[in-house]
Amino acid sequence: MLPSIEDSGEFKGWKTWKNEAFERVAAGPFYFTDDEQGIKCAFRAEKHHLNGGGVVHGGCLMTFADFSLFAIAHEALDGAFAVTVSFASEFLSGPKLGDLVIARGEVLRAGRSLIFVRGLLSVDGQICLNYSGTIKKLTPR
Amino acid sequence: MLPSIEDSGEFKGWKTWKNEAFERVAAGPFYFTDDEQGIKCAFRAEKHHLNGGGVVHGGCLMTFADFSLFAIAHEALDGAFAVTVSFASEFLSGPKLGDLVIARGEVLRAGRSLIFVRGLLSVDGQICLNYSGTIKKLTPR
Amino acid sequence: MLPSIEDSGEFKGWKTWKNEAFERVAAGPFYFTDDEQGIKCAFRAEKHHLNGGGVVHGGCLMTFADFSLFAIAHEALDGAFAVTVSFASEFLSGPKLGDLVIARGEVLRAGRSLIFVRGLLSVDGQICLNYSGTIKKLTPR
Amino acid sequence: MLPSIEDSGEFKGWKTWKNEAFERVAAGPFYFTDDEQGIKCAFRAEKHHLNGGGVVHGGCLMTFADFSLFAIAHEALDGAFAVTVSFASEFLSGPKLGDLVIARGEVLRAGRSLIFVRGLLSVDGQICLNYSGTIKKLTPR
Repeated sequence: MLPSIEDSGEFKGWKTWKNEAFERVAAGPFYFTDDEQGIKCAFRAEKHHLNGGGVVHGGCLMTFADFSLFAIAHEALDGAFAVTVSFASEFLSGPKLGDLVIARGEVLRAGRSLIFVRGLLSVDGQICLNYSGTIKKLTPR
Repeated sequence: MLPSIEDSGEFKGWKTWKNEAFERVAAGPFYFTDDEQGIKCAFRAEKHHLNGGGVVHGGCLMTFADFSLFAIAHEALDGAFAVTVSFASEFLSGPKLGDLVIARGEVLRAGRSLIFVRGLLSVDGQICLNYSGTIKKLTPR
Repeated sequence: MLPSIEDSGEFKGWKTWKNEAFERVAAGPFYFTDDEQGIKCAFRAEKHHLNGGGVVHGGCLMTFADFSLFAIAHEALDGAFAVTVSFASEFLSGPKLGDLVIARGEVLRAGRSLIFVRGLLSVDGQICLNYSGTIKKLTPR
Repeated sequence: MLPSIEDSGEFKGWKTWKNEAFERVAAGPFYFTDDEQGIKCAFRAEKHHLNGGGVVHGGCLMTFADFSLFAIAHEALDGAFAVTVSFASEFLSGPKLGDLVIARGEVLRAGRSLIFVRGLLSVDGQICLNYSGTIKKLTPR
């Protein structure tokens, strides 16, 4: 699960997983990088992300949050394949067209098989989504 | 939030919300209808729904589940606008390309402002996702 | 984790885990049995279960729901020790003093290490709590 | 919902709600205070808090977390009555007999009717429980 480096545009130099059809073509594209605060994920809210009320669809936010679980747990996973086991979230506000949506979070515990992550999505510091996810490393049978 | 009737193809006669960009163009298209068991939602797993592991992306399943909350609560909403407040889910199996993913669920309680829904996504009777969502009716200020 | 049989009182013949201090002395006592619909768990709402508003405390309902995860998964566990990994719930109504609170649920998937359960607490058919829990079998190191 | 001040023992000077039977007699007693980091809740793990495995029962941790929602949202509630609407948590480690369990958290959003809180339970800096809860202010009819 090696990420690629984006080579142009707003997210030039950020990482993404190019073999992810849903995250790349449909729901995304989503990106991640890191700075002194840790992993930082982002996407720019475009027309195809919106719901009928004119804000980013909750499903898009949850998809981005799910993407962020793997970015945040990237180091803990150390190349292992993993799947999301459970996910919980609360919706606090809806990003609008053109907004830059940021995900920040932390690995709360990395066990032998389960990794626990929590995070927040925000736009300009205003929280959009609070979420927690548990991911499970896949072991070769 | 009046749904439209699909007029051709596999889901001819089913309902959908056509002003929903994310559900129509990106993550979907998703449909619902009803039979003797209640509301039934469905989508056909296509290439753009898949993750890098070759199964439907968890974010796509959560988006479809979120869609289903509003289909299942359609009658209880009685035309009112509403937003998802919280959502929780567990991932049990991943649908494959070409699978017909079905959502079934029930309104557990419809209060003055909050409606509680739970449901299951499945393919051929095998459960993919267990989910619960709370939606909040919007009141004109 | 072998349960004992209660030998007197309202829950005579039902099962309980007697080495569980919190479930027996503090939050409980909680019981389970089975009938043609499957596993059935119950407790009678007493004074020490109530919150300041005069209904059963949400924490008591969650503790009973957590107990029920293990009763419902009893057969799937087949004697293995297990712990709760995640738990999600919505509160729909509060049982009152003297109410018989019932838990019913189902194993959605029993994997090699994780067992997924969902259930409902109710009083006289009225739902009190909707919940889902994931439990993890402990393996000897 | 005015809290009382404890007048003796380990938690002298801390606040608690004395009319809460379940939190005081059964599951607790639980306390809260504040310092420069904000609201801090605590309880000392006693025998009656334990499960059959010798660690604090998950139901006890969830009850304490539920208590903490109201302590953390105390200022935002401004005297209003409120109930928990939804609660989600992951279990990371089990406190042992004698441990001092601390809850820290934050109000993510305080709306007109719903208040969103997230928090962590820990012992000596090691996380035990990650949780989020949504509480709803009750309005006089």
